Amino acid sequence: MAFRLSALAEILTRYQMTCEIVGDEKREISSVATLEDAGPTEISFLSNAKYEKALATTRAGAVIVSREQEVPPHLTILRTADPYAAVMAVMVHIHGYRAHPKTGIDPRAVIDPTAKIGENASILHGVTIAADVAIGKNAVIYPGVFVGPRCRIGDDCILYPNVVLYDDCILGHRVTIHAGSVIGEDGLGYAPVGEKWHKIPQVGIVEIGDDVEIGSNCSIDRATLGRTVIASGTKFSNLIAIGHGSKIGENCMFVAQVGIAGSVNVGRHVTMAGKVGVAGHLTIGDNAQIAALAGVMNDIPPGTKVAGQPAIPIKEAMRSISLMQRLPEMTRQIKALEIQVAALQKLLESQSTTP
Amino acid sequence: MAFRLSALAEILTRYQMTCEIVGDEKREISSVATLEDAGPTEISFLSNAKYEKALATTRAGAVIVSREQEVPPHLTILRTADPYAAVMAVMVHIHGYRAHPKTGIDPRAVIDPTAKIGENASILHGVTIAADVAIGKNAVIYPGVFVGPRCRIGDDCILYPNVVLYDDCILGHRVTIHAGSVIGEDGLGYAPVGEKWHKIPQVGIVEIGDDVEIGSNCSIDRATLGRTVIASGTKFSNLIAIGHGSKIGENCMFVAQVGIAGSVNVGRHVTMAGKVGVAGHLTIGDNAQIAALAGVMNDIPPGTKVAGQPAIPIKEAMRSISLMQRLPEMTRQIKALEIQVAALQKLLESQSTTP
Amino acid sequence: MAFRLSALAEILTRYQMTCEIVGDEKREISSVATLEDAGPTEISFLSNAKYEKALATTRAGAVIVSREQEVPPHLTILRTADPYAAVMAVMVHIHGYRAHPKTGIDPRAVIDPTAKIGENASILHGVTIAADVAIGKNAVIYPGVFVGPRCRIGDDCILYPNVVLYDDCILGHRVTIHAGSVIGEDGLGYAPVGEKWHKIPQVGIVEIGDDVEIGSNCSIDRATLGRTVIASGTKFSNLIAIGHGSKIGENCMFVAQVGIAGSVNVGRHVTMAGKVGVAGHLTIGDNAQIAALAGVMNDIPPGTKVAGQPAIPIKEAMRSISLMQRLPEMTRQIKALEIQVAALQKLLESQSTTP
Repeated sequence: MAFRLSALAEILTRYQMTCEIVGDEKREISSVATLEDAGPTEISFLSNAKYEKALATTRAGAVIVSREQEVPPHLTILRTADPYAAVMAVMVHIHGYRAHPKTGIDPRAVIDPTAKIGENASILHGVTIAADVAIGKNAVIYPGVFVGPRCRIGDDCILYPNVVLYDDCILGHRVTIHAGSVIGEDGLGYAPVGEKWHKIPQVGIVEIGDDVEIGSNCSIDRATLGRTVIASGTKFSNLIAIGHGSKIGENCMFVAQVGIAGSVNVGRHVTMAGKVGVAGHLTIGDNAQIAALAGVMNDIPPGTKVAGQPAIPIKEAMRSISLMQRLPEMTRQIKALEIQVAALQKLLESQSTTP
Repeated sequence: MAFRLSALAEILTRYQMTCEIVGDEKREISSVATLEDAGPTEISFLSNAKYEKALATTRAGAVIVSREQEVPPHLTILRTADPYAAVMAVMVHIHGYRAHPKTGIDPRAVIDPTAKIGENASILHGVTIAADVAIGKNAVIYPGVFVGPRCRIGDDCILYPNVVLYDDCILGHRVTIHAGSVIGEDGLGYAPVGEKWHKIPQVGIVEIGDDVEIGSNCSIDRATLGRTVIASGTKFSNLIAIGHGSKIGENCMFVAQVGIAGSVNVGRHVTMAGKVGVAGHLTIGDNAQIAALAGVMNDIPPGTKVAGQPAIPIKEAMRSISLMQRLPEMTRQIKALEIQVAALQKLLESQSTTP
Repeated sequence: MAFRLSALAEILTRYQMTCEIVGDEKREISSVATLEDAGPTEISFLSNAKYEKALATTRAGAVIVSREQEVPPHLTILRTADPYAAVMAVMVHIHGYRAHPKTGIDPRAVIDPTAKIGENASILHGVTIAADVAIGKNAVIYPGVFVGPRCRIGDDCILYPNVVLYDDCILGHRVTIHAGSVIGEDGLGYAPVGEKWHKIPQVGIVEIGDDVEIGSNCSIDRATLGRTVIASGTKFSNLIAIGHGSKIGENCMFVAQVGIAGSVNVGRHVTMAGKVGVAGHLTIGDNAQIAALAGVMNDIPPGTKVAGQPAIPIKEAMRSISLMQRLPEMTRQIKALEIQVAALQKLLESQSTTP
């Protein structure tokens, strides 16, 4: 299906975005592609200056750019304040989200008779749903998923293949969990008795809010007591570990391989880049931004950007790195000073003995 | 079910812990909770000084504290030498460990006729048990688990959903493996031939001792030759990678996202905090403690605490970090010295030319 | 089955390797083992000087060593230029690779009628193959694997248990994916709208070349637009994360827990050691070598060895580390200079006032 450029511009207005078309507004667009790959019936976009050069060579039928962006004169463009948000809207309109199988409840799924499943659910073959589970409307549950006893899952949730929910976990509405992620396994809770470790029963749960998306192969520990929380609107990438009893606030964004120890409190709208580690029992303030590979060893105040191991304010971390690179020069400066001072001392000694 | 505080105190004596109740020993307790969440019929505990303030506001019916801990006078307390060990004992008594389904051998499990399974096993639907496997008594094997040919599993083992054991792996007694972990995949063994990599058959195995607990989504390579070993009593958190042929000693504790390269020898009772990495062919001595995010590039002597990248004794690492923070000051000091020395030189030159 | 040493030497010539036997060439060898474990009917090898001492105590029937290696006189040895490549060839000959079940297409697999499966495939029970999938000859697909709609898989591929391929992914020939890995999940693509994150449809795919081997529990994002690529001959260990739209060149080797952000271009024959992280939108040149735990924040030229966080040429990184260790001495040197300069100043002042 193809859409005129003018129709796509119309779509943006529904998202409260204004835009201006420069070129043929009747051009027909059938899909979205990168500047490198796009052809004459495709629309592309520029939101990262790093790819600006590709404007000169792109074969795209149209390109979404910022209001200020300079472009080669032959290009048909769509100017708007936030090209990245605009392409999102255009992609949703043209491509939409993944279509899921509409199978109803497959008779080959193993569903405990005490489980309650809302209307319009697709529960595929090879799914296990244990006793006393409650699942809301429109669920899509792929093969190999295990939903443990007494879990409660809201409406419009998607569990991709081989997701595992341990007992008693709670998911809100519109939660998506990607393949292979595990929610509610026991945390690393042991009491040391001599050199041995005695297991502490992990009687808490995991509670996930609304509109949360969890990537693939993540592991979210249940709390020892109480709850591990992933609050509404938060998005995780892959291979993320969340320790027992930690609470992650609303609208956070965690990149792949982040690891949070136990009993950490993370505020709202915190971003953590790839491989960040946070030690136990810390508090990370709202809107904090943690750079990739940072090792957080202390509380982070709200709104602070930090980097490094241990993590410190990012400006200090950058200065540290540049000073590190100055160490060879500092070594030379010290050596030079030592020679000069020794020479001065010798000179003064000779003066004091000369007369 | 509720227990009098005096009955819980009695439980501790069975664990060789003595304690003293201050307050109403007839108070009835039905569960364990955090200081923040506990209500009047719940017992809580304080073992991390960080949470001391919560004593003032907790609504807990009783609190387990250390012998020396100051507490508000209105609290009912149970004093003991090690509150963390005590709460473990109380939790085991009140809550117990997770109850598993007692299904027997589900006819929908796919079990090779040559496999031997001990009495009282629960092998759930959707499990695969390959040829010549031997499994001990009381096994609990959840849906989606794959047990490869010739694996040998001891008594009282629990394999959570979607665990995969490759061929020939050996598990001791009372081994627990959490969901999605993979034991015995091929390690990264290739011989370089020009730019290409020729796969080396990985003919070794993984051997796991007794009382080992492995978290979720871990990956433990089989040995190229011989054995990868996880010795008895060792506990892993989630997303841990163990390279081919490494041997992890008894009673170790590894936090999430630890990665051990191949052919590493780790001693007994070694602790590794989150995200530690250890390079190949190293030896880590008994009782070593490796701080979070450390990168171990050299052998570590027994009993040593290390931190940093590369990992060095933790006191040196701390000093390095504090000196790093002094670099701006050092830069200023050097600049000041250069100015002073230049002034001295100029002065001396003028003196020597003046007369 | 046993092989004479002379027969094994003959095998090496088929791989264009020459060798020389010192000792009894009629000795019968039945398997390969480490120097530590090998007995009189086993052959071992020495390729890492670290294990040289084991030559004195090994009970191996024969040992493969380099041309120059000194060995105790009693050992039967096989001298060759590259002992590691030689033992690979011997292992392939004696042990071969893992044998897979030859089951044909199990009726308990759930295969969409529109899927096309090549001859001689083993599709085990518990496998899901969705609509419009095409799979080549000789496939081995283990239980719990999910192959999403429209995936195309070449000949001779092995998918171990619980691997998940999302829709539209393309695998070449002779691709092996180990248990629990996920290919083609949605990347972390959201447009920020206020504090909220609006999901961007991830309409790209993952394309994997020929002869690729992916370890267990890896996660490879599909592209937002276009393709995420793992080119032919590349080998991954476990728990590796590849971000959306990244392109990994041919014959790369990535060790466990490597994480690559989105839109990264990695050249040919790049090696990344354990836990390396690479930030988004970077270019890593052919034959680059990235040391363990490095954090790559800038483009890396071809053929460069880098280390550290941020990653810099490895010689500079090593010098930085050794200078770090000199910081306490530098502090002392500065202090000493300050004292000397103050003394000189005082002396000069007294001289200038004395006369």
